[in-house]
Amino acid sequence: MRIGDTWYRTIWPSTDGATVEIIDQTRLPHAFEVRTLSVLEDAVEAISSMWVRGAPLIGATAAYGVCLALQRDPSNESLRRAEKLLAATRPTAVNLRWALGEVRAALEPLPAAERAEAAWTVAARICDDDVAICRRIGEHGLALIRGISERKGGTTTHILTHCNAGWLATVDWGTALAPIYMAHDSGISVHVWVDETRPRNQGASLTAFELGAHGVPHTLIVDNAGGHLMQKGKVDMCIVGTDRTSANGDVANKIGTYLKALAAKDNNLPFYVALPSTTIDWETRNGMVEIPIEERSPEEVTGVWGRAGDGSLVNVAVAPEGCEAYNPAFDVTPARLVTALITDRGVCSASWDGLSGRFPELAGLEPVP
Amino acid sequence: MRIGDTWYRTIWPSTDGATVEIIDQTRLPHAFEVRTLSVLEDAVEAISSMWVRGAPLIGATAAYGVCLALQRDPSNESLRRAEKLLAATRPTAVNLRWALGEVRAALEPLPAAERAEAAWTVAARICDDDVAICRRIGEHGLALIRGISERKGGTTTHILTHCNAGWLATVDWGTALAPIYMAHDSGISVHVWVDETRPRNQGASLTAFELGAHGVPHTLIVDNAGGHLMQKGKVDMCIVGTDRTSANGDVANKIGTYLKALAAKDNNLPFYVALPSTTIDWETRNGMVEIPIEERSPEEVTGVWGRAGDGSLVNVAVAPEGCEAYNPAFDVTPARLVTALITDRGVCSASWDGLSGRFPELAGLEPVP
Repeated sequence: MRIGDTWYRTIWPSTDGATVEIIDQTRLPHAFEVRTLSVLEDAVEAISSMWVRGAPLIGATAAYGVCLALQRDPSNESLRRAEKLLAATRPTAVNLRWALGEVRAALEPLPAAERAEAAWTVAARICDDDVAICRRIGEHGLALIRGISERKGGTTTHILTHCNAGWLATVDWGTALAPIYMAHDSGISVHVWVDETRPRNQGASLTAFELGAHGVPHTLIVDNAGGHLMQKGKVDMCIVGTDRTSANGDVANKIGTYLKALAAKDNNLPFYVALPSTTIDWETRNGMVEIPIEERSPEEVTGVWGRAGDGSLVNVAVAPEGCEAYNPAFDVTPARLVTALITDRGVCSASWDGLSGRFPELAGLEPVP
Repeated sequence: MRIGDTWYRTIWPSTDGATVEIIDQTRLPHAFEVRTLSVLEDAVEAISSMWVRGAPLIGATAAYGVCLALQRDPSNESLRRAEKLLAATRPTAVNLRWALGEVRAALEPLPAAERAEAAWTVAARICDDDVAICRRIGEHGLALIRGISERKGGTTTHILTHCNAGWLATVDWGTALAPIYMAHDSGISVHVWVDETRPRNQGASLTAFELGAHGVPHTLIVDNAGGHLMQKGKVDMCIVGTDRTSANGDVANKIGTYLKALAAKDNNLPFYVALPSTTIDWETRNGMVEIPIEERSPEEVTGVWGRAGDGSLVNVAVAPEGCEAYNPAFDVTPARLVTALITDRGVCSASWDGLSGRFPELAGLEPVP
């Protein structure tokens, strides 16, 4: 994606062939800074401190984390240790585990001496695959936007999104935002309502940033406002991303997604979830009960990061000193509230039948009763 | 209410008999500062800049604003001018207009020379009445909390609230929080989930502050989290306030209230709205369509006020420079999502029948069809 005149991915191997570079997303939108990851622990910190975030990008970063570990020590112990440390960073994102599984399957059979080089190849493939997957999600979602735009006679289609499921959450293109970029690029008039997405404000800081950089019209709103906008006819559709979709079509995504899905249902508006097949958790049959929800630091709730008048990044307290806070990072939207899933193999219902119909070779399970 | 060892109301006449004092709520919870209002324009600014807020307190402040105007100039022109300026400050709060109507009805028949003194008497009565009304709301709501507590065998009752409808929103006691204070004071184990309430964070700054000052257990959450907590069985009931209730039981309250009402319905949890009869708009028959929604500055969305490390109050930008934002301050929750209204004359259904049954002498209209 474009920042000014330069095309970027969110992660790429350095020219030295031994380190990895990422965009530090905790600095956006206030500063655009590239960081170098040199050792496994850098990759672990990049994920857990959310320099990178978004399910697909977390997976890609984990794959490169294994590269960094193996080029120092290609033993089985080193591989297992890297996998364990990386898997523990974020409990909700399922394709973190998927990416680590891909890497292990490719490397474990190899002699130790060949592993490091192979790891770089696997990580690059995971990234390229992610870009291709996101492009296909974009194409399938584009058809949905085009349909609504045509029903509206070509007047502006207003799309609400939550958190950031754009190119910053993936290697390129994004999931929920890929259809929006393609619609905009193909001349369809779109406008995006961007949920701020407290506590970490990924909507305000990342989605608004990348839509602005690409020139897509958008307006920032607080998370509280979306229901009112839907009541007033100012939203035509919702598209969000997901960190994990269970085999029955329940969708884990950033905290607050469930509330927007309820409002869409109450106002008869379509609520779409865009996902790469790597985020489907085929082993989880009931997402409402089984998906683990990451709890993050209360300080993300009691404080807010922002740009002070002098341009510096500061954290300000919004609560009384000593105030307790609780910070679940995700919620699960039940399949019944999801109009359809936008996958890299097309649009399907949020159900076992829908998912296994699109991905029969992955499903490999008895149907969800 | 108590702050440390001192009992406060939110507004009171100064000992000089010519000015009014208020707590500057824009400084809470970081600083407790009392401001003096000396002229009409001070009262107008106090309301529009939200030094005071909350429907009942806005009404009381408007009444005192008229006092300040009339002691300088008790003419009809002065009275009309004061009324006009004060009424324009906040379009959604209906009891601002109610309080101004009360003041005018009492003063207009009087000779100019007697008006100023009479105005102080009327304003004091409005304040005393508000305290009595809130106490009765508290008593009626207490019975609801006690019922849930007893069904839970006396284990902790978890109550979610949005924005601030506590004593800081009224003259004393509060509306939504009055039942909670009374439950806590009578030994019922209660715990409050406090919605942050972006964009102005009245939950984090005011509700958390006053619950903490009174010793009521509470936990701050982002506005996005309430639905998830309800799904997980961590909420037993919701109680919120309102700025205006239409004659058919639709409820205007701080933006985001509608989303919590949807989540409560989806999880079969009771959703109560506490209101003084002064906030019922008998002339509005369909709240979803007719209630005007105040739109406030986009800067409330793109920035956040908080306490920096050095203790100073600063505003930090959370969005890219130049990012557009939209800031509707209220939404309307349809009556069908409201379990019941808690009024100063008891609990009733959110409907014309419910409201007119409790307040037959105020209704005075044909029933809403």
